[in-house]
Formats: sequence, C-alpha cells, structure tokens
Amino acid sequence: MENILMFKQPPCFVSHAAVGGREESRGPLADGFDLFDETDRFGQKTWECAEGEMGRLALSLALKKANATQRELDVLLAGDLQNQCVASAIGLYTFGVPYIGLFGACSTCTEGLLNLACLLSSDTGMRTGAVVTSSHNCAAERQFRFPLEYGGQRPPTAQWTATAAGAFVLSSREGEIRITEGLFGRIVDGAIRDANNMGCAMARAAADTLLRYFSASSHEPSAFDAIVTGDLGRIGSSLLIDLLRERGIEIGEQHGDCGVMLYQFQKQDVHSGASGCGCSAAALSSYFLPKLRDGTLRDILFLSTGALMNTTSVGQGQNILGIAHLIRIQSSKM
Amino acid sequence: MENILMFKQPPCFVSHAAVGGREESRGPLADGFDLFDETDRFGQKTWECAEGEMGRLALSLALKKANATQRELDVLLAGDLQNQCVASAIGLYTFGVPYIGLFGACSTCTEGLLNLACLLSSDTGMRTGAVVTSSHNCAAERQFRFPLEYGGQRPPTAQWTATAAGAFVLSSREGEIRITEGLFGRIVDGAIRDANNMGCAMARAAADTLLRYFSASSHEPSAFDAIVTGDLGRIGSSLLIDLLRERGIEIGEQHGDCGVMLYQFQKQDVHSGASGCGCSAAALSSYFLPKLRDGTLRDILFLSTGALMNTTSVGQGQNILGIAHLIRIQSSKM
Repeated sequence: MENILMFKQPPCFVSHAAVGGREESRGPLADGFDLFDETDRFGQKTWECAEGEMGRLALSLALKKANATQRELDVLLAGDLQNQCVASAIGLYTFGVPYIGLFGACSTCTEGLLNLACLLSSDTGMRTGAVVTSSHNCAAERQFRFPLEYGGQRPPTAQWTATAAGAFVLSSREGEIRITEGLFGRIVDGAIRDANNMGCAMARAAADTLLRYFSASSHEPSAFDAIVTGDLGRIGSSLLIDLLRERGIEIGEQHGDCGVMLYQFQKQDVHSGASGCGCSAAALSSYFLPKLRDGTLRDILFLSTGALMNTTSVGQGQNILGIAHLIRIQSSKM
Repeated sequence: MENILMFKQPPCFVSHAAVGGREESRGPLADGFDLFDETDRFGQKTWECAEGEMGRLALSLALKKANATQRELDVLLAGDLQNQCVASAIGLYTFGVPYIGLFGACSTCTEGLLNLACLLSSDTGMRTGAVVTSSHNCAAERQFRFPLEYGGQRPPTAQWTATAAGAFVLSSREGEIRITEGLFGRIVDGAIRDANNMGCAMARAAADTLLRYFSASSHEPSAFDAIVTGDLGRIGSSLLIDLLRERGIEIGEQHGDCGVMLYQFQKQDVHSGASGCGCSAAALSSYFLPKLRDGTLRDILFLSTGALMNTTSVGQGQNILGIAHLIRIQSSKM
C-alpha cells in the first residue's frame, strides 16, 4: 500500500495548454498561458457554460500543438468543481472520446495525470490520452458561497478560485518529459470545519502524501529541483512546511505552491492565494512544463491538493477532508 | 478509439458485497444482499452520512469475504451522486487506502471496475484494489429534487434512487470470474431536458456503447448469456431496444436492466424503476456475480449508465448528457 508506483516505460507529455480569465491574465504566470478572455465569459451565456468552454478550448489548443485530432485519443479524463462535474461533461462531450469522469476537487489534475499514466502502462493497448481540468471563479462562488451580486466578504484565510483550465496530452511512447513515478493520495481528515480555510485542510493531506513518498523513496527532498503543491495558498503552505518539519523533513528550499504563484500578492485581491481544479493545471502547463522543456528544471515532485466537502457537509458540521496526489516528472533535456 | 480494451491477463473478482435499505429489502434481489437497514439511517444522524456508512459497510463486508484487510488494497476507487462525491469520502476515508475519486453519476460502478481492471493490468505493480459506489434515496431527493417532507409528486417516467451500496474487490491474479474486455463510454447528448426522464437520456448512451462494441467485436448479441444495463428503467429500456433495432441489432432476449430488476413492479411505488450509483452495483453483487459463480451465467456484457446533469444545468436549459461504460464478465465455472 505504501509502494510508490514506478513506471517501467514512463509515459510522456506530448503537449499541453492553459486558458485563463481576467485575474489570471494579470498574474505572474500570464506569459505561459495560451489564451485569455478578459470578460471571463468565453462567449457563453452562463458562468457554468463558460467553464465548460474553457476546458474545450484548452483541449483544442493542446491537440493542435500535438498536431493531433481527438480521433487519436484513446481516452479522456476530466473533472471540475461544479456539482456532478457538469462543466467537464458539457465542455468535452463534442470530442466524442471515451471518457472517464473524475472527482478529486482541486487534486483532479494530478489524479488524472497519474491515472492516465497507469492506463497508458496497462496491457490494453491504450497509447494516447488526455486530461482536462477546470474551475471558474464565478461558477464556484455561486455554487459554494454566494452569487457575486451579493458582495460577500471573505476572511484572509479564503482563497480565490482560479478561472482557468489546463489540458494535457500524454503518450505511451518515449519522450523528453516523462511521468516516472506516482503516488495516489489517501483521504485525510483535515481537522478543519471552516470552508474559508481549505488551504489548512489540504495541507495535512499534502504532508501525508509527502511523508509516504519520502519514507518509501531513497531520495531526500534536496534531490529535487522543485516540490510543488497545488493550491494550499500562503497559509496552507506555511502549515505544510511546519507539519513536515515536525517529522524531520525540510522542503522549504524546494517548495512552491501553484496557489501562491498564480496571482501577484497584495496587488490582486486574492487573500491567501488561488485555488480550484484549474489552478495547479494552469501552473503546470504555463510554468513547470516549459521549465522542464528548456532544462531549467530536470526533476520535480508535483502534487495537486483537494478539499473534499460540499455546502451540505459543511452545514452539517462535517470536517473538511483532504487528498493530495503526487507525480514525479523528469526531463531528459540536456 | 473504437478498440475494445482486451485484458491479456484478465483481473478477477475476489469478493463483493451489497448493502441496502427498506425498499431494497422488499425487492426481488433481496436474497443476494448482505445487509439491510430497514430504517435507511444506518445509525447516522443525516441521510448524507447514512450513505457514507453504507459504503463503509459494503467495503468492510467485501474485505471480510476476501479474508483480507484494507492493508492489502493498493488502491480504492469510489464515487456517488452527492455534490462533490462527499458520501464516498466520508464513508471511506477511515480505510486509509490510496484513493481515486470518480464521477460518472449512475455509471460509476462499471467506470470504476473497468478503470481498476486497467490499473491492475499496468506495469506499476498494483495487485489488488476495490471499487465502492453508493446512492441514498433521501439524500438524492433532498439534493436533486425536494426534501422528502415536501411530498413532491413524480411523473411515471421518474425513477426511484436506490438506497444501496456495492463493493467489489478485484485482483490481478487468476480467478474464476474475470473482466476480460471493456469499453469506456463516450458522452452522448441525451436529447432530453426533463430531469424526470433520465432513463431515456441514458438509453442513447447505452445504445452508443453497445453499437461501438458490436461493430468492433466479432460476437453477436446472442453470444452472450445476458446484456445488462444499469438503470434505464422500463421506459429507457424500451427506448434502448428500439434504438438498437433501428440499427439492426436485436438484444431483446438477452437484455436485462438493473433498474427494472431491483424492485417489484406495481407492488413498489418506484414508477419507471430504480436508479442511482448503488443500483447497478447492488444488482451486480446480489444477482449477476452469484449467477456467474454458480455457472448459471457464463459470459455477460455489463453496462452501468449515467446521466450527467445537475440542478443548475437543468435549470439553465441544458440537455441531459448520458454515458455508459461496458465490461465483459466471463466465468470459467464448469
């Protein structure tokens, strides 16, 4: 159960794309995005459909870069934060690709990439697949908190759901940037009931996965160029570093968090940082994969982190549960 | 893309269990269930937690039958109908097993079994895993329609969400009952906007998957002892048979639908039949797997069918999308 999944024939990233909205276009990672819509509407009548359209555009852009069409995809894995993951279904059904719906909250990006890597390593003949995850600030606010028009105030621990989608095409053939190892997360009691402090609920899950990884691996944290978490934000990131330090593991120098990186602290009103299924996906596509491609990074651990809750469970006094999946991404670029 | 996934070393069912509530205990499949709670509460304070507890009990029972503990599970796949799949998270986190959250609505059972079969056929060393899916009538009514106390009327096309959970332990070793083939479904526009007629929205997806299967396979429908769909109900089943007949495929003699089988027609007030993530899971565990074990059935196609929608998407006038995943289950019992 504690074994790291190691790929004998590591699947590779063929292409990837990130799409974002207005806030994302003003953030530090903007240069690496493929497309922005400053209206956040993406030509749709509802925020919910706008999110679906972001996913559709991200996959279209990734397929274009791969010089491929949907006919070459054996399978498509996707998920989002909308109830019953409707954004992914609405946005992606026109591709007509065999579809695996995932729910991992904001952990969905890495959950999908690791699951797809396993599928491409199976004896069933699947060769090429894609992962798409998305989130939309306005759809998430309406669903999880209040409609925007209400103007609800948020505490400093709250995070800003990213309006973003990421798409990734993976292949079982040899390539430059490969997923060489992975670890599916366990569900961890975040010991938090405050839906405005999900970074801390997820930090415990990230700590659990990293402790499992380093106890099973022969590597120290310093062996990696970066150890990246999904969307813990500033407050959750600080807790993660403390939790690991208590157990004798120091990741401070290597650690980066996509939720911290996506926006400009203080200049953008995002409180503890970014969150959402699109957050780690957009950061992976816009920043980390290009750095692995150009050789600036060679070997990273990448985790997406999810808070497993809904408005009813929080209203009924349930603790927020967390999960964090991990992949190791290595580049052979000299 | 149209290739049937064929397992060179087909994973086997090690054990399985079904748990149900009051209506299920009165249905024709009751003898095959492992546990009922006539109160539908399973010792919990909320319907939502009762669903989580059903999943926990189902997995505990399946592990007991497998003479195994959670420590032997390399991975656990689960999903349900509650927003953000909270029932699965709450019910299963205490097992502490690496977890893949799925969302496929009522298709989740077969989605999970096929995904797990692929994982067990990968080169990553996973040997044993489990799938758990659940639904609870009272949690679903509150979330998708009205709280029970409202006493809302339902039209004849409506289905009754089953209060049921199924759990399945699969292994990569050789065994008597094996998943030999599979086909992940594509998302299909159900061309229906009525959330009280989901059987018809899903029937188009079931037809799509079966047409893909029979166009790629050398087998005729008559080669199978049974062709089982998840929860089309009476009305959706009738549409499926018509849709396939239009394309020259006749499955009437082999076809069974878990949603039709779970309750006694007319004696139980379930209108078009059962639905929910627990429906096909409970029917597979309580009826089909025992029949494959005793040799009454030898070779079946099993599909779970899902309607991909939420209350917002229906309210915004979106069509209900459908999906249907397929596995072929063969028994070597003489």
